[in-house]
Amino acid sequence: METTGARVLILGAAGMIGRKLADWLARDGRIGGAALGQMTLADVVPPQAPRPGDTTLTADLTRPGTAERLIAARPAVIYHLAAVVSGEAEADFEKGYAVNLDGTRALLEAIRHAHLADGYCPRVIFTSSLAVYGAPLPDVIPDDHIRAPLSSYGIQKAMGELLLDDYTRRGFLDGIGLRLPTICIRPGAPNKAASGFYSSILREPLVGQEAVLPVPDTLRHWFASPRAAVAALVHAAGLDGAALGTRRTVTLPGVSATVAEQIEALRRIAGDAAVARIRRVPDPGVLAIVGGWPRAFATTRADALGFSAEASMDAILAAHIKDELGGRL
Amino acid sequence: METTGARVLILGAAGMIGRKLADWLARDGRIGGAALGQMTLADVVPPQAPRPGDTTLTADLTRPGTAERLIAARPAVIYHLAAVVSGEAEADFEKGYAVNLDGTRALLEAIRHAHLADGYCPRVIFTSSLAVYGAPLPDVIPDDHIRAPLSSYGIQKAMGELLLDDYTRRGFLDGIGLRLPTICIRPGAPNKAASGFYSSILREPLVGQEAVLPVPDTLRHWFASPRAAVAALVHAAGLDGAALGTRRTVTLPGVSATVAEQIEALRRIAGDAAVARIRRVPDPGVLAIVGGWPRAFATTRADALGFSAEASMDAILAAHIKDELGGRL
Repeated sequence: METTGARVLILGAAGMIGRKLADWLARDGRIGGAALGQMTLADVVPPQAPRPGDTTLTADLTRPGTAERLIAARPAVIYHLAAVVSGEAEADFEKGYAVNLDGTRALLEAIRHAHLADGYCPRVIFTSSLAVYGAPLPDVIPDDHIRAPLSSYGIQKAMGELLLDDYTRRGFLDGIGLRLPTICIRPGAPNKAASGFYSSILREPLVGQEAVLPVPDTLRHWFASPRAAVAALVHAAGLDGAALGTRRTVTLPGVSATVAEQIEALRRIAGDAAVARIRRVPDPGVLAIVGGWPRAFATTRADALGFSAEASMDAILAAHIKDELGGRL
Repeated sequence: METTGARVLILGAAGMIGRKLADWLARDGRIGGAALGQMTLADVVPPQAPRPGDTTLTADLTRPGTAERLIAARPAVIYHLAAVVSGEAEADFEKGYAVNLDGTRALLEAIRHAHLADGYCPRVIFTSSLAVYGAPLPDVIPDDHIRAPLSSYGIQKAMGELLLDDYTRRGFLDGIGLRLPTICIRPGAPNKAASGFYSSILREPLVGQEAVLPVPDTLRHWFASPRAAVAALVHAAGLDGAALGTRRTVTLPGVSATVAEQIEALRRIAGDAAVARIRRVPDPGVLAIVGGWPRAFATTRADALGFSAEASMDAILAAHIKDELGGRL
């Protein structure tokens, strides 16, 4: 067991990003310029520990006392990735608010009470979402554009960003929020998320399977690889909080690409045969959801803070082939 | 007692705006195009009823069951003006969140449960604040500028705006939020609010008393009279909610004026002798608070919805002289 070094708590550690983050940190052995101490990996389903000495916990932030227990060892860095996803927050109003708002608040309140008791002031890294932005949107969204969500999930994430600002300004914690681009290519099986096609039209053809494209080729959106998302989470741990000023959440850099540009990148890497595996089956229901999503950002603040992403859709495809397919097609 | 007509609930009815609103509605006898029914006036201190048949209640929204009791008679229009003010929300972190966030949420949740039970869907008019905007700010703030508060009060109001959007989008209620300009001239005795000088440098000299000016003459801010604020609250009751779209809070029109322009308006109306009663006593503490406040807004959305304010600081002074000084200097 690691008894020295910076302790890390990851909430939502069983999710795709949480697992990759824990693996990255274990591989690196460092966090925010210090040696990595014991990691505590928590989620509502059992997470896996990448190292023998790390702790795994099945824990529900909405249960009284859970947040206090999770921070009892005073982790220096807390990753708060735990959330009910957008579709579920929309389908189950009460659960969305309970987990995404009240759960977040329970964590921040536990930290505040610890701060008042013993001066505890951890780096808290909160994953937010492009869903804080709602149509109408400019072609390129600046850092000071209004957060006006059109989903309960987006509302809850925007409220989390506001709380993070206030708790940081008050000195209870040292928060950084990251609005993740849409992850592309998301590994694993196709899921039912409305945005799932953005990954599946690349992921399935790369391994010889068919994929369905429900929207027009002209639709533009904002992407980063899983690897870039995890790199940003790691980078955030070592940032000087003062460099963020009072607005503690930034939109991460990404690749702005149309569906047509995604497909052309696939063609360059895997040829016409792969592209031929994409079937166009227009779905007005999917278009109604994703049609108003952000198309591109001017990530001036995140760029200045040293965050980066892939330079092109080709690089995103290459990252997937390397990280998920063993480097071979 | 009024047994027909539209019932109205005013939360925060003992405050300056709440009292003036209740008086206005009682005088008009109408609300949102309908006859005014019974009014319920609630506050944490006992409100006064402008008509014999109206109900007054001492009630604390943060107490379990209070919100349910307040809406038991299913008022068609609810004015939610109740809040802990900015100075107190900053001094007492827990009270600010309890009243401004949890109290607002308790009200919205009571309405949601009533909606699920019997289809209840009231017009809810929520007073928000310019405090949702924090520096750095453009000279003229557009409707789509980021809400990035620099006070706990502003954070809580921004969260209230977000909740109002979500509960409205879900169909639980029909919400309209109004960001009130700084009220000028606020009637009554000088108070300790950091912004108090904006009123006192006019109010006190008009009645032959001295006032202290703690900031430079060049400071610019956004004002409306109490009368304009109440007129906006009344106007909001009759609006077609669909005209607001998904963003249910608007910044109200106002007068953008520098301190120097305030003083020149005072000179035109009350002469050099009145202006001579303003003593300049620079206060860096006050300037630190108000120096980053909004200077002006492009109120495109509110204008299109028919909201209006005074055209000049002279008109704001004239409104005060008519409404508070019996029309005479």
